[in-house]
Formats: sequence, C-alpha cells, structure tokens
Amino acid sequence: MLVDRPVLKVGVLGAGTVGSQVVRLLLERAEDFAARSGARLHVTGVAVRDLEAPRDPAVPRELLTTDSTAVATGNDLVIELIGGIEPARTLILAAFRAGASVITGNKALIAAHGPELYAAAAQAQVDFYYEAAVAGAIPVVYALRESMAGDRVTSVLGVVNGTTNFILDEMSTKGLSFDAALATAQQLGYAEADPTADVEGLDAAAKCAIIASLAFHTRVGLDDVAVEGITDVTADDIREAHASGCEIKLLAIAQRRDDELAQGVSVRVHPALVPKDHPLASVRGAFNAVLVEAEAAGRLMFYGQGAGGAPTASAVLSDVVAAAAHRVNGGQAPRESSYAALPVLGLQDALTRYQVQLRVVDAPGALAAVAQVFASNQVSIDSVRQSSYVGGQDAVVTIVTHVAPVRALDAAVRDLEQEERVESVVSVRRVEGL
Amino acid sequence: MLVDRPVLKVGVLGAGTVGSQVVRLLLERAEDFAARSGARLHVTGVAVRDLEAPRDPAVPRELLTTDSTAVATGNDLVIELIGGIEPARTLILAAFRAGASVITGNKALIAAHGPELYAAAAQAQVDFYYEAAVAGAIPVVYALRESMAGDRVTSVLGVVNGTTNFILDEMSTKGLSFDAALATAQQLGYAEADPTADVEGLDAAAKCAIIASLAFHTRVGLDDVAVEGITDVTADDIREAHASGCEIKLLAIAQRRDDELAQGVSVRVHPALVPKDHPLASVRGAFNAVLVEAEAAGRLMFYGQGAGGAPTASAVLSDVVAAAAHRVNGGQAPRESSYAALPVLGLQDALTRYQVQLRVVDAPGALAAVAQVFASNQVSIDSVRQSSYVGGQDAVVTIVTHVAPVRALDAAVRDLEQEERVESVVSVRRVEGL
Repeated sequence: MLVDRPVLKVGVLGAGTVGSQVVRLLLERAEDFAARSGARLHVTGVAVRDLEAPRDPAVPRELLTTDSTAVATGNDLVIELIGGIEPARTLILAAFRAGASVITGNKALIAAHGPELYAAAAQAQVDFYYEAAVAGAIPVVYALRESMAGDRVTSVLGVVNGTTNFILDEMSTKGLSFDAALATAQQLGYAEADPTADVEGLDAAAKCAIIASLAFHTRVGLDDVAVEGITDVTADDIREAHASGCEIKLLAIAQRRDDELAQGVSVRVHPALVPKDHPLASVRGAFNAVLVEAEAAGRLMFYGQGAGGAPTASAVLSDVVAAAAHRVNGGQAPRESSYAALPVLGLQDALTRYQVQLRVVDAPGALAAVAQVFASNQVSIDSVRQSSYVGGQDAVVTIVTHVAPVRALDAAVRDLEQEERVESVVSVRRVEGL
Repeated sequence: MLVDRPVLKVGVLGAGTVGSQVVRLLLERAEDFAARSGARLHVTGVAVRDLEAPRDPAVPRELLTTDSTAVATGNDLVIELIGGIEPARTLILAAFRAGASVITGNKALIAAHGPELYAAAAQAQVDFYYEAAVAGAIPVVYALRESMAGDRVTSVLGVVNGTTNFILDEMSTKGLSFDAALATAQQLGYAEADPTADVEGLDAAAKCAIIASLAFHTRVGLDDVAVEGITDVTADDIREAHASGCEIKLLAIAQRRDDELAQGVSVRVHPALVPKDHPLASVRGAFNAVLVEAEAAGRLMFYGQGAGGAPTASAVLSDVVAAAAHRVNGGQAPRESSYAALPVLGLQDALTRYQVQLRVVDAPGALAAVAQVFASNQVSIDSVRQSSYVGGQDAVVTIVTHVAPVRALDAAVRDLEQEERVESVVSVRRVEGL
C-alpha cells in the first residue's frame, strides 16, 4: 500500500520533548501518515546541539546530526522545534530558499519576525504552518485563519498560557501566595526554572499578537501588545475576586473597535476578574481555552491542552499532513492576509470594565457624588455594592462599570481621587467577560 | 483592488434562512471575500421553488430563478442549501459533472449517500465541502478531518442537536414534561411543527455517522448508528438524574474499541446521564458541543451555536472561501479517507456504564448477592448508594458500574431480574462522561 506513494524527505530541527514525540509518531505511524497525506514521509535527519546528551530512545541514534543547516536545506518538509529567535530564524529562511515547506511551533519567532517569514515562504512558493504556536493541540490558528474566513471576528478572549493558569488556579483553590504557587508549578514541571516569559505575560503576548493578526487580517507584532503579568497578583486579590463572584485569569485579548470614537484593533494581556459562570473562569490547571466572537457565528469556544509534548506534537503533525498533501496534490497553505491593515490602538483606547473599590465618607450624598464623577467621564455604572464593615463613619463601596475606553475609566479614577467625599481609592481591577 | 482578481461564478440552491444569509453576506462583504479567497465571487443565481414566496429582502429579486439545474450546472461554485435527499443529490451530482465545486450543509444527504458524492467529486477533480452539516459554525468537520490528521482519535462525544438539548434543558431547569417542553420549543422556533427528525434522534444520528466516518477513516452510514430519541424521557427521569448529580443529555457517541474482546467502531445516539461537572452537562439551550479524545492531543472541546441562519451561513462561507482559493491557487479539499476500514460494531459491543436502581430485600447478604451477579458477568461496580425511603423491609439500591460492553451489562440486568433477593429492577440508565 505504501509502495506506490511518492516519498517526501522530512527533517526535524530539535529533539526536545516535542521533537522526540514528533519523530516517534512519524516512525510508528508511517502507514497512517501515508494514507492521510498521500506521501511516504521519510525522516532523514534530526538536528541537535549535542549528540551525546541523554534523550528519548524513540529517536533513533543514527538520525541525529549536529549539522542543522544540512537538515534545513536538504528536505521537502522541515519541522522547526528549536524555539527562540536564532538560529531558528536563519534556519527557516534557509529552508524556504531551498524549497522546503516549514512547520513550526515557535510563537516568539512568529510574533517577532512573522512578516519576514511569510514573505519568504510566499516568494519560495512553499507552505508555512504554525498551528502549534498557539494553544497546543487546540486548532486556534485554523479556526481564525480558515474557519472564520467567511465571517467577521469581533473579539478573541483567551486563557493561552498554561503555566500562569496553573499558578492562579493553585492560588484560587488552595489560598497559596504567588511565590508558593510558582514553587509548586516548578516542582511539577509546569513552570521553568526561569519563569519570566510565562509569569510576566510575554508568552501570552506573543500568542496574542498571532491571534490578532489572524483574526483581523492586520499585522500585529509583539510590540503592539500591552502586557502585564501575574507577579503582582496576591492571595488577597484572589479572596476579593471570590467575594465578587469572580476568578482572576490572565487573559489574552484581541478586540476590534469600530465606533464613533475609535476604529482599529486593541491587543493586550493582563490579569482580569472573570465572573465564575463565564466559560473561561472554569478553565482549570494547565488547560487553555479560547473564546471567539464573530458577527455571524456568534460565540465559539475551543478548549484543550495548550502545552506538553504530545498535544503540541499532535498540532505539528496535522500541519505536516497538510503540507505533505500540498506537495502531492498542489495547492498551498493560506498566505498571510494583512489586507485589512487596521490601525493598532493603544491601551488607552481598549474597551474594558473596571471594578473600583472606594472608601467613602458614610454621609448622605457620597454615593451621588461618586456616581456623578463616573457620569461626567461618560462611564456608566453596572452595579454598586456597599459594605459597612469598616469602623467609624466610613463605608466601602464596590462599583463595577459598564464597558468603556481605558482613557475614560482612568480619568474617572483620577477624579475620584480628588473627590472630597472619597477617603481613598482602595483598588482598581479590570473585569472581562461580563 | 478587486479588479485584478479572477471572477468565480457562484450559484445558490435554496433561499431559506441559511441561503438568504449566505447571499446577503456574499453581496455585502464582496471585498472581504475577494481579499481572503483571491477571487471575486459573483453570485449568478439563486434557485427557489416559488418565485413569489415571501422571502428575505437581502436576496435581490433579479437573482431568483426556478431553474435549479441551470444554477447547478452553470457555476464554478455551487452552494446547496435545499436539504433532504432529492432533488439535492441529483443537483449536486450534476454540479460535479459540470466541473463545479460544491458546498453543502446537508447532513441527511451525506449520511445516506456520502460515498457516492465523494466518489463523484474525486472523479470530477473538484472540491466537496460540508462543514455546516455538523454543529453549525463549530469547525468539527475540520477538526476531525484535518486538525486530527496527525493523531489518532479514540472517541467523540457530542451534544449535536440543539432542539433536543433545548427541550431537555427546559425539562431540567423548569421541571416541564417532554410535551410541554416540546411545545415551548415549537413556539420559540427551536423545534419544527413535525419534530420527528430531532426528537427521535435521526438528525443527531446523521451527524454521528459523519463524525465517525471522519474520526476513524472508515465508512459509517446512517444505518450503522444505533438510535434512541428523547420522547420517552420523563420529568421523573430528570429528577432522578438530578438526585444522582447528573443531567440527561442526548449524546452522539463515536467510539473506537481496540481490546481483546472487540476491535472496531461503535456509533450510537441515545439519552444518557452525564455528571454535572462534566463539560457536556453545562451545554445550555440550543448550543452544541463536541468533545474529541485523541491519543496525543488528549481531550479537546468545541462549543458554539449548532444551528440557525447566521452561524450555519458562517460555516458555509468558510468552505466557500476554501473552495474558491483552490480554484485560484490549485490544490483540493481533503478527499474522503476510508483507508482504515474498521468494522462497525453492533450496540452489544458498545462500551458504556449503567446506573441500575434495584428494590432489594433489606436483609443481610442482599448486597453481596447483587455484587456477585455483576461480578459473574465481568462487570465491575463503581459506586453503590442505598436509600431506605421505601417503607417496610425493602431498600432501594442505586449502582453505577464501571465501563463494560452493553452485552455484559444487559446480561447482568437479566440475571438481577432472576436473583431472589432482588424484588424488582426499578430503572436502568446509561451513564457517559464519568
């Protein structure tokens, strides 16, 4: 059955957790891949830095080589799983020039150098696939690039970093501090020894840039994303969130604004309160979920394992099958589409809601004065909750606004700080998904 | 910008809810479609039965025609939205012979005549797309056909019929009877005047056959699906389900069995108890959700609107963009892949769990006798709950089994009926998602 199919040479760059799984599955399931892609996939080499490093026995010793350039330029399909910017960028460009289609899961590289890579693939008339770059095995890249091709996306809201979600989940369910939850995550292998890229939101920001580019047919780079990580989230913040019927999630948000005040795309990553009955609030542990809202389709949610060797390998291999089928049957992967070229808006033009806690003088007229401050900044109020657990003559008021631009919300907070019947602004938190 | 792109002629068969939305969006968003597909999509005709019937003003009067054969054979892309077997089948085959690619949402036709249609498309070397046939705008067809191409699916569990889910949800949240809930669904337009196809599970069965075919690379037709609808579900059943911490859902189940006793594919549609903390239990109203388990990817869930004009149009139009891009750039949709040709197993070989309620003599040894009946049929017990609310010397025992073949479970139930310390078998229900 395999004999009559054309052979495609496959090179793999990197043999870490994902690379080992990819090689193992390509070898073990050769018949499945031949039947599904129409080609026999022949792994010719696996480039590694150190031939002697201990590694998964699933990768045959004789495939290993340190000559990554030869692997990049001597194959029909090149799978890049080194990660990072260099040498991944140089090797992928060399592969394109050599006529290879490239499959990668390298979100940092795409967020930083996407347009250069897309242009090189288009010039070489080869495929460039990167499903594994966003949310592991969950087909988010496909959903935005192809499934929404007949629709108009209005927003994407996602929990796209498993490490931070695990940490926030530990804090929420066990009352741990950030440091204690991070330590647990590191012990269990969910966080790296240097957790910066995850906990500072940079990994999520790279994914957010890719999501926004695909959703809005507009070039969005890492620098366009306003980023805030979770290192400042405290156990107190989580307790307060629970008291408001919410969880705190690190969200990647890509939003289209098209109103009289602003038109464009807003992209940001930050922790936010999410009501407990919202589907993203119940995303547990290291799972990922992405919520897409589109004009015709309405709300779609995708949920699954966003990281890990096997799920990421599953995403890489579906791209391999697609790229191989194009080699056999003609056709090509959808090209980068940035025709809409919408302006990228700053954080001040993002739309969100604030939950503001105020300590006010417990006297007639205080609440009216507070309401007036919001109104004069064109911010409507969704709900007001007054607790009088503080002693003396003060009260704590918790206000949740309607959706408004950050510019207006921040102006309202500044005015509240000046308002004489407000003793102090206790906290200001973003709320999403109401 | 549009001028330099090739023109593709598009014909639409049917101008009902979905057809009207499709035509409206193709006309309103011509620029978007041109940029995304690489071709100008020119709607040449919309075939209807009655030119004078009242219809959505979004469909220009001058496009309407009763000559469906001319629409089917005179275009590059044909969108079939008539539904039912004939004349849809004849028109699609004519479109293929005339060299057109076809996009449809006709699940009944695909479940009944899929192989004939796939073969005709392959012979004509054109595309055949049907994302809208399963779960509306949720890209389930894509997920199974392409996203899982590098993986091995072990099971698919779905809430794929919005009408029955709405009815069960009304029964669950409002305590309504089936008839009262059906009447509400009909008033709100969620159920048709003749609700047979939905409430008897036939619509879900057609989707289940398509899902199983795609998931397991095996031909599965409507006749292979064991079907039971929801007409026998009572308000009492729902109350009992709640008492067990469950909801009742109509599930479409496609399962791969590969153990020492049986190898093959099991496909069925029936109501089942689903624990409340399972993701499918919280699928509300007319929404759909599909849970895919694969060896490498693990568990993936897709959630969204499974029906309705706009969501279905969104799915149809993403297929239109893909088919148009193939016309411009070459390439083709993935062909039907039935290479695995797994045997289709009967219901007796399906794996499930039972919840069995028994009235037993409240005497020492009764429970041991019951446990012995299960054990002698190779069925393990997951949990036992005993309630003594019945008067006299009887007790009601609720047993939930582990996963076992229906054959063994049914044999255990038959033996229980003969066991002298069992007064009666009160109820037997299937449990999924534990």
